[in-house]
Amino acid sequence: MSKSPEKTGEERLIAKYFAPIARHPGALNLVDDAAVLTPPAGSDLVLTVDAIVGDVHFFSDDPPEAVARKALRVNLSDLAAKGAVPAGFLMALALPEGVTDAWLQSFAQGLGADAESYACPLLGGDTVKTAGPLMVSITAFGFVTQGKMVQRHGAKAGDEVIVTGAIGDAALGLKLRNDSGAVQRWKLSNKMREHLVNRYLLPQPRNAIAELVRAHVSAAMDVSDGLAGDLAKLCRASGVSAEIDVRRVPLSDAARTALAAEPGLIETILSGGDDYEILCTVPPGRAESFIDAAQAKGVSANRIGRVTAGEDAPRFSGADGRPLSLSRTAFSHF
Amino acid sequence: MSKSPEKTGEERLIAKYFAPIARHPGALNLVDDAAVLTPPAGSDLVLTVDAIVGDVHFFSDDPPEAVARKALRVNLSDLAAKGAVPAGFLMALALPEGVTDAWLQSFAQGLGADAESYACPLLGGDTVKTAGPLMVSITAFGFVTQGKMVQRHGAKAGDEVIVTGAIGDAALGLKLRNDSGAVQRWKLSNKMREHLVNRYLLPQPRNAIAELVRAHVSAAMDVSDGLAGDLAKLCRASGVSAEIDVRRVPLSDAARTALAAEPGLIETILSGGDDYEILCTVPPGRAESFIDAAQAKGVSANRIGRVTAGEDAPRFSGADGRPLSLSRTAFSHF
Repeated sequence: MSKSPEKTGEERLIAKYFAPIARHPGALNLVDDAAVLTPPAGSDLVLTVDAIVGDVHFFSDDPPEAVARKALRVNLSDLAAKGAVPAGFLMALALPEGVTDAWLQSFAQGLGADAESYACPLLGGDTVKTAGPLMVSITAFGFVTQGKMVQRHGAKAGDEVIVTGAIGDAALGLKLRNDSGAVQRWKLSNKMREHLVNRYLLPQPRNAIAELVRAHVSAAMDVSDGLAGDLAKLCRASGVSAEIDVRRVPLSDAARTALAAEPGLIETILSGGDDYEILCTVPPGRAESFIDAAQAKGVSANRIGRVTAGEDAPRFSGADGRPLSLSRTAFSHF
Repeated sequence: MSKSPEKTGEERLIAKYFAPIARHPGALNLVDDAAVLTPPAGSDLVLTVDAIVGDVHFFSDDPPEAVARKALRVNLSDLAAKGAVPAGFLMALALPEGVTDAWLQSFAQGLGADAESYACPLLGGDTVKTAGPLMVSITAFGFVTQGKMVQRHGAKAGDEVIVTGAIGDAALGLKLRNDSGAVQRWKLSNKMREHLVNRYLLPQPRNAIAELVRAHVSAAMDVSDGLAGDLAKLCRASGVSAEIDVRRVPLSDAARTALAAEPGLIETILSGGDDYEILCTVPPGRAESFIDAAQAKGVSANRIGRVTAGEDAPRFSGADGRPLSLSRTAFSHF
C-alpha cells in the first residue's frame, strides 16, 4: 500500500462528532480500543446500562439532541438512586440507513451538553449499522464510598416512603403524543401540555441529591417503569410491604388538572413509568432532614406512605380512602 | 392493589435466563438498578464496548450460544490487547418479536459458559424490544496496574511488529458462508472449511497472554477490522509507519490452501477483519522472550515486520517481494 493513511468512515464519524465532546483524558481521544479510569482510593464502582430504541422508548422524529439526552439521563438517574457520583459513560450507537450529518451533529451536541452539565464524560463507544430502528445503549459508571452503594434491599417496616419531584407527568406526556384529542378532554392549557410532553421527552434525573440519598435512605431506586410496580420491586427485594396514600403522591398542576377531568388517569400516573424520580425509604427519624436537605438542593421530596411488615404487594389507598385496584402496576416490554 | 406481588415479564425473563449465570456478588442477583465492583487497590479500570447486530456481525440463524459467545469475546479481545484482566461485563440485549424460550435458553447457556471460562462475570444488563434485528451490546471491564494500560500509542521506529494466531481465517469463513461455490474453487477439505467457518462464528480472544502484552509490548490493539487497516490505525496513533512482509503473516493451513487456489484472496486475508488476534509492537530486544512466553501459554506469536519512522501508510511487500497494493485496508460500516 502506497496510499496515504486514510481514516475509515467510522473513524471519520467518531472524529467529527464524538471526539470533540470526549475531553476526559481517559477517553484517549476515542482512538484506542478502550478507555481508562483511575478509581479514587476507597471507592466502589457502580455500573449500570440502559438502552433506548426508536419508537419504543422515544419517537423516531424526536429532536436528536433530546434522544441523546434521554439516553444518558435514564442512566444518570440510576446512578443518582444508588447514591453514586457520575464518573463517565460508554455508548453503543446503532444507526439505521439514512441518518444525516445534521442529525448526528445535533445528537452529539445534546450528548456533550449533558455530559458536561452532569459531569459525566463520554469515555468511549461503538458505532454500528442496523437494518432496524436507531438504538442508543449507554453504560454509565459512578463512584461511591466502598460498601455504601444504596440498594433496593434495605427497607424496614416503619420506614417512610418518599418520592422526589412529581409522578405521572411523563406517562401523561406520552399519552398526549399518541392521542391528539386528550389535550382538550383533559382541559389542559398550552403550558400544561408542554410541561407533560417535555417531561416525557427529557427526564430530569436527581443527581443533585445523590449524596443525600447515600447518607439518609435505607433503600432506593429510580422510578422508570411506574411508581406502583417499582415500589413492588423495592418491597420484594427488601422482604417488606408498604401502604401508600395516593392523595400524597406528588402531582404537577398539569397532572392534577388532567386527573380532575379524567379520574381513570390515576392508573397511568401510578403505573405508566418514565418518571425518573427517586423512590426511597427513610428511617422515620431522618425523613424530615432528608426532605429539607433535598429541598435545599432544589429537589422536592414528599412522604407518600410507610413501609409495613409482610410480603403482600404494596397497598394504595385512593382519594376516598378506599383501596385502589390497578389493572397493571408497571410497564414491561415482555 | 390487593393482588400478590407479581413479577413483570421482563423480571421473569431475567430471573429465568440470566440471574442463574450472574453469580458474582456485585451482580446483586440482577434485582437492582446497578451492579457494584470493588477495584483492587492500585489498579486502573479498563472499559470497552462492542455491539453486534443480526445480519451485520452475525447471521440471524447462527446458533444462539455462538451469538452470545461472539458478543462477549469481541470485548474480551479488547481487554486482552490492553493488557487487562477481565472483571465483568454488562449487556444490553435488544430482542425482536418471536425470539423463543429455546433461543434465550441457549443464548444464556453460551454466555454463562464463556463468562465462567474467561472469568468475566455477568454483572447486569438491560433487555429491550426492537422492531429491528437482534442486537447485543456488551460493555466489559478489566483491571490493570495503575498507569499500565497498553495503548495504540507507543510504537517506536525499530520495534518489531508481531501478531498472534493466524490472520484471515474469519474473513474467509464469512466468504464461505456467503458463496457456496467457494469451497470447491479454493480446494478446501471439509475440515478446512469447518475451521474457517468456525473462526468467523467464534473468535478466540487471547486473554491468556494479557499479562505478557502488558509486560512486553510498546503498543497493541486487537485485529477486528482487518490487519492492514488496524495496523494503519496503530501507526497513526503512534506517529510512525511500518514495513510488513506478507510472507510472514501467519496463515492457517486452510487459509494457505485457499490463497494458493485464488491469490487475490490476499486482500480478504489482510483487510477482511474479525480476526480478534493481538497486533502489537515490541522493542527489538524483547521480541524473542515475548514470543517464547506466549508460546508457553499456548498462543503462537509471529514477527511480521518492523516499525519505521515517518507517517506514511504501512507498506506491505508481497510474495514476490514487491509492494502490495490493497484496494481497501479495513472493514468499516460507514
